[in-house]
Amino acid sequence: MAPRVYVARRFHFSAAHRVYNPAWSDEKNAEVFGPCSHPSGHGHNYELEVVVAGSPNPDTGYVIDITLLRKAIEAQVISQLDHRNLNTDVPFLKGCIPSSENLIVALWKEIAALLPPGVELVRLRLWETPRNCFEYYGEYI
Amino acid sequence: MAPRVYVARRFHFSAAHRVYNPAWSDEKNAEVFGPCSHPSGHGHNYELEVVVAGSPNPDTGYVIDITLLRKAIEAQVISQLDHRNLNTDVPFLKGCIPSSENLIVALWKEIAALLPPGVELVRLRLWETPRNCFEYYGEYI
Amino acid sequence: MAPRVYVARRFHFSAAHRVYNPAWSDEKNAEVFGPCSHPSGHGHNYELEVVVAGSPNPDTGYVIDITLLRKAIEAQVISQLDHRNLNTDVPFLKGCIPSSENLIVALWKEIAALLPPGVELVRLRLWETPRNCFEYYGEYI
Amino acid sequence: MAPRVYVARRFHFSAAHRVYNPAWSDEKNAEVFGPCSHPSGHGHNYELEVVVAGSPNPDTGYVIDITLLRKAIEAQVISQLDHRNLNTDVPFLKGCIPSSENLIVALWKEIAALLPPGVELVRLRLWETPRNCFEYYGEYI
Amino acid sequence: MAPRVYVARRFHFSAAHRVYNPAWSDEKNAEVFGPCSHPSGHGHNYELEVVVAGSPNPDTGYVIDITLLRKAIEAQVISQLDHRNLNTDVPFLKGCIPSSENLIVALWKEIAALLPPGVELVRLRLWETPRNCFEYYGEYI
Amino acid sequence: MAPRVYVARRFHFSAAHRVYNPAWSDEKNAEVFGPCSHPSGHGHNYELEVVVAGSPNPDTGYVIDITLLRKAIEAQVISQLDHRNLNTDVPFLKGCIPSSENLIVALWKEIAALLPPGVELVRLRLWETPRNCFEYYGEYI
Repeated sequence: MAPRVYVARRFHFSAAHRVYNPAWSDEKNAEVFGPCSHPSGHGHNYELEVVVAGSPNPDTGYVIDITLLRKAIEAQVISQLDHRNLNTDVPFLKGCIPSSENLIVALWKEIAALLPPGVELVRLRLWETPRNCFEYYGEYI
Repeated sequence: MAPRVYVARRFHFSAAHRVYNPAWSDEKNAEVFGPCSHPSGHGHNYELEVVVAGSPNPDTGYVIDITLLRKAIEAQVISQLDHRNLNTDVPFLKGCIPSSENLIVALWKEIAALLPPGVELVRLRLWETPRNCFEYYGEYI
Repeated sequence: MAPRVYVARRFHFSAAHRVYNPAWSDEKNAEVFGPCSHPSGHGHNYELEVVVAGSPNPDTGYVIDITLLRKAIEAQVISQLDHRNLNTDVPFLKGCIPSSENLIVALWKEIAALLPPGVELVRLRLWETPRNCFEYYGEYI
Repeated sequence: MAPRVYVARRFHFSAAHRVYNPAWSDEKNAEVFGPCSHPSGHGHNYELEVVVAGSPNPDTGYVIDITLLRKAIEAQVISQLDHRNLNTDVPFLKGCIPSSENLIVALWKEIAALLPPGVELVRLRLWETPRNCFEYYGEYI
Repeated sequence: MAPRVYVARRFHFSAAHRVYNPAWSDEKNAEVFGPCSHPSGHGHNYELEVVVAGSPNPDTGYVIDITLLRKAIEAQVISQLDHRNLNTDVPFLKGCIPSSENLIVALWKEIAALLPPGVELVRLRLWETPRNCFEYYGEYI
Repeated sequence: MAPRVYVARRFHFSAAHRVYNPAWSDEKNAEVFGPCSHPSGHGHNYELEVVVAGSPNPDTGYVIDITLLRKAIEAQVISQLDHRNLNTDVPFLKGCIPSSENLIVALWKEIAALLPPGVELVRLRLWETPRNCFEYYGEYI
């Protein structure tokens, strides 16, 4: 029996997006989404917190080498988002309205695929602004 | 089956309060509550985080329009607290010692009543100072 | 003789931009600006701190009513930037590469024009990210 | 010739205040100060940054022992403000409208009196909220 | 039936550590731990958040007097860590690789022992840097 | 005549230090420096803000390419400090009591030497903890 410890790492990326539904007219988009749907887009400094869980390895005291975790997520995930436009530039968001809700669900799959055995993805937090935050735990309803 | 995503929004208000029990003498209040019970009161910049959960609407990518959520809570709840005295000015705190514990439980009822169907209140966090924080999940024991 | 006090207020806006020089080829832009020049743009949560100075009015204790200052700058300046694209949507940035250096110099003129007599604009600070910040004091060299 | 280094320390206090002019009617106070003048008051978590300057002592590498500076300011100044009402409880604010402008000027005198020879008070910063800040450099105009 | 409220308090300590396994050679330590294992050590400003839960006492509105909680944890726990070397100076870390995972599990036992009846320890968060954070809920797997 | 704009970039490093004067006994060090002088040392997460000034280049809108500035300072300066012991591991601190005052003065020389013509170093800020900060402007007295 070993303690279950949670390890969290924060990432940063700057991206543009426009929240709109391509099936709708510009008028309907403006009515539903307001300034979030301005045609030339806007952008954010996103903060992403990735939380994994597991037991500390008795030889290292680590659940996971946080430097390796950081490098894998930066190379495979953040590099696809940073200084990009979420509507047009990100393969794993293709065909998806780039709301933070849809972004965080898409990030779950990308990040879970990078974790070694024995380390479980348990929570993502995504700040769109310092006051607007989204969380996902891999749950379905 | 749809993903369950959590949406959090932070609010700010500045208020005065004095923690004391009107059934007790000033001496007993001073003894139990110390400087929190100084007769002329003191105050805080409170930060409140409201977390709701639901499934993103496929047409909008939103669990809830966070701007509408923000406006409803500001108009119905924050406006009753900001630049007010929690002991004397807030109808929904009448008869209640304005500790942060009691405040957060009272806030739960006010905020839950404002949410549309399909959106569930799941967590409140209330910072009284940057180092003192209170959480409530609607639980009873 | 009256004390000179500085009053600072922070503002927030989310905007898209692309740093590029329209006189250059896409290749030269990519070479000079790197990912900041990706064609579809990217974006930031900007924080702007406006600092003015003056003497407190003996009747009010205020250098300036910070609520009035806030409302004027939000209505006249922030509303032109928030949820906008700095390359295409902002009249006072027309013809200007929207680097944070050029943005802060342009903001100085917009904000100085809004101040009442006896209140002097002394400093602007503009955070493009939490780690990149720009300051302007109205100086020329 | 020795380098001049600036040493800054932050303090925290929670206080109530009501911004009003006792020479005016409640109506005039409400008209001029708005919600800042509500009769039962409101409050803030104030942050105060004290900045002093001097040359590092060659034997210690210190301009001043920051622990001694902290203890002196906590004991002599912060203790008079924390968990107090600025309108009624603070001797050095007697007769003064407790705006942050007046508070910061009053704090200058209190703090300057505590510094040892060779250490100069150069700047105070007082945050009333995370977005409203006041600075004072001891200047008169 | 009474509401269950969570009360969180943050603590700060500055400590040195070196992540290494004394059963390994310096070469193996360098290979596995990289710069975290430099022989002379390095250090951090740790932030610790302690979260307890219980029902507010009807007479006080408090789950626990947060000032008493703070003083007990500072006197019994933080004082053992602040301005110390985690490899050599802390009795409750004896024989343990001072990774943040091992530190947070050790802290659980120290802090749980200090709580009065009716107040339950539910979560610890430990920030090693602003971007690296560890959580523990007392779980075993 | 061109505007003079200030560009600030923040850096992070984690290091151990012990404040003590090798010319003194352990007793005198303990008496003067208290816990800052514990023999096994302690450590901090340092934040360093580097501020340079110049005129924006009309072709780029930049005073300096902040990515190049960042990379040069990380490679030449931060790499010498991060995950190191300031008493023993840093060539440019040799023979110097590693107080933050002495560290910031030493950093000035290291960083000034890296700047291109037309870009002037104007301010360093060094946070030892979130509440203790040091500033240096290259001044001598």
